[in-house]
Amino acid sequence: METSTASISQLAAGVGDMVRQALDRYTQFSEDCPPRLCEAIRYSLLAPGKRLRPLLVLMSAEACGGDMEAALPAACAVEMIHTYSLVHDDLPCMDDDDLRRGRPTCHKQFGEALAVLAGDALLTMAFETLAGHLRPARVAADCCLELARAAGPMALVAGQADDLDGETAAPDLARLESIHRRKTGALILASVRLGGIIARASRRQRSALEEYGKRLGLAFQITDDLLDVAGDENTLGKRAGKDADRGKLTFPGLLGVDESRRRAEQLVTEAVAALRRIGPQAEGLEALARAVLERNH
Amino acid sequence: METSTASISQLAAGVGDMVRQALDRYTQFSEDCPPRLCEAIRYSLLAPGKRLRPLLVLMSAEACGGDMEAALPAACAVEMIHTYSLVHDDLPCMDDDDLRRGRPTCHKQFGEALAVLAGDALLTMAFETLAGHLRPARVAADCCLELARAAGPMALVAGQADDLDGETAAPDLARLESIHRRKTGALILASVRLGGIIARASRRQRSALEEYGKRLGLAFQITDDLLDVAGDENTLGKRAGKDADRGKLTFPGLLGVDESRRRAEQLVTEAVAALRRIGPQAEGLEALARAVLERNH
Repeated sequence: METSTASISQLAAGVGDMVRQALDRYTQFSEDCPPRLCEAIRYSLLAPGKRLRPLLVLMSAEACGGDMEAALPAACAVEMIHTYSLVHDDLPCMDDDDLRRGRPTCHKQFGEALAVLAGDALLTMAFETLAGHLRPARVAADCCLELARAAGPMALVAGQADDLDGETAAPDLARLESIHRRKTGALILASVRLGGIIARASRRQRSALEEYGKRLGLAFQITDDLLDVAGDENTLGKRAGKDADRGKLTFPGLLGVDESRRRAEQLVTEAVAALRRIGPQAEGLEALARAVLERNH
Repeated sequence: METSTASISQLAAGVGDMVRQALDRYTQFSEDCPPRLCEAIRYSLLAPGKRLRPLLVLMSAEACGGDMEAALPAACAVEMIHTYSLVHDDLPCMDDDDLRRGRPTCHKQFGEALAVLAGDALLTMAFETLAGHLRPARVAADCCLELARAAGPMALVAGQADDLDGETAAPDLARLESIHRRKTGALILASVRLGGIIARASRRQRSALEEYGKRLGLAFQITDDLLDVAGDENTLGKRAGKDADRGKLTFPGLLGVDESRRRAEQLVTEAVAALRRIGPQAEGLEALARAVLERNH
């Protein structure tokens, strides 16, 4: 495998349209869905994003010899969960953000009530998509369980709740890693696991995906923190410097920029090393890991 | 079958403990769940309620020759969805209610951010419970799909979004029934359908449950509107008269109290008639329909 310097967007180019078209199909509602709710859901879900998590699902399935097309419902479901969490996190009672993916946040555009409901709808639709489109039933049920655990009160929701407290908590690396393992890491890990479930991955493949996913998730969060310090708001599509403003725990805040950067590089090196147990079909995942390190948004 | 005048609470007495114990088990979180989040989830879910929807799941399974114990995860999942919808509906940006099930609403007790997160967690946990505890996988996947559709943007969430608009919309019976079919009716219908799926009900049994569920759902909403006009706040456990205060569309507002009452009775008569196609095992469902008519909270 040779190293790659492609960006996440470049890697996504091949499959990005596939994901976008599928998300578009899954949000063609009947007239039972009020037009404004439909609009708020599509505004948030179809906004330009990196689509990192759908890519992880598709590439993990491919790495284990599975079919990308078969994994598409799971790729979309993960993006729905990710989008719902952004919509709710941006609410005034949570992080109170005005800008997301380069546009006004959902509640800025549609009001708070519709933003709560659009988030609720997206969370629900993730499970409808898995249960309604994955086959056979064993795979559908396993994926529902995996995604529900990753999104639930001991993972994604827990990380968000702790993050609220984190604004006042004592700085502590173990606590910061624990927050991120749940807030960001759980859904990234679930993404690679879903790919593995759909591809009927071997035990060896699953354990490699597991190691890869855990390290990538943490590396992703470290680069996220670094971009918040050094990034440009126009490129980021969201407000920069907001972590520091809020006194949030961050990796650069705790370790400094250089040590944070070194740590992210180390994690990506380890993530890529784990992929060797899968073999050459994992080159998409390798390129993706390297792209996470080089990302500028 | 003879008529019964038992209240919903009396009917629930036999299985209420079973449901409560199961809900308690499903909310035993690891330390990965922050204590305040755990508390907010349990505060809302374990509050004294009628447990109408869990009863419908269990009695529908029983009516079709299924096992109540096997249906327990689905009964709990439906209660989680119902509770999440109450927690989010009560938020200041939605209905802005202070009292629910005789206690301060979740956001009054824990703050808005935690109420949003507790609702998100409950919604997610519903699918974790179905996917993790129902067997075989076919039943688990079918139940996830059924519940996701009932809770999604063309049903529960749509009804809530329309309800927000309904406060200013022109009074129209078709519109009111359409809102309630989605806001209240969809989850009640899903409850009986879940019971049918778990009991592997015959086509004949399923169609009877379907008719029963649709009529009961509407009857339930009419009695809800009537209680809001005439009910006592202490018995209701929530504020009375709030629909009129907000200029919301209601059945008594459109049809008057007497005609609304007559309509609810007619719907229950029809619901009970549909049960004849199932036979004597459906007597629990019959008693439940009659209790809905007599309810005082």
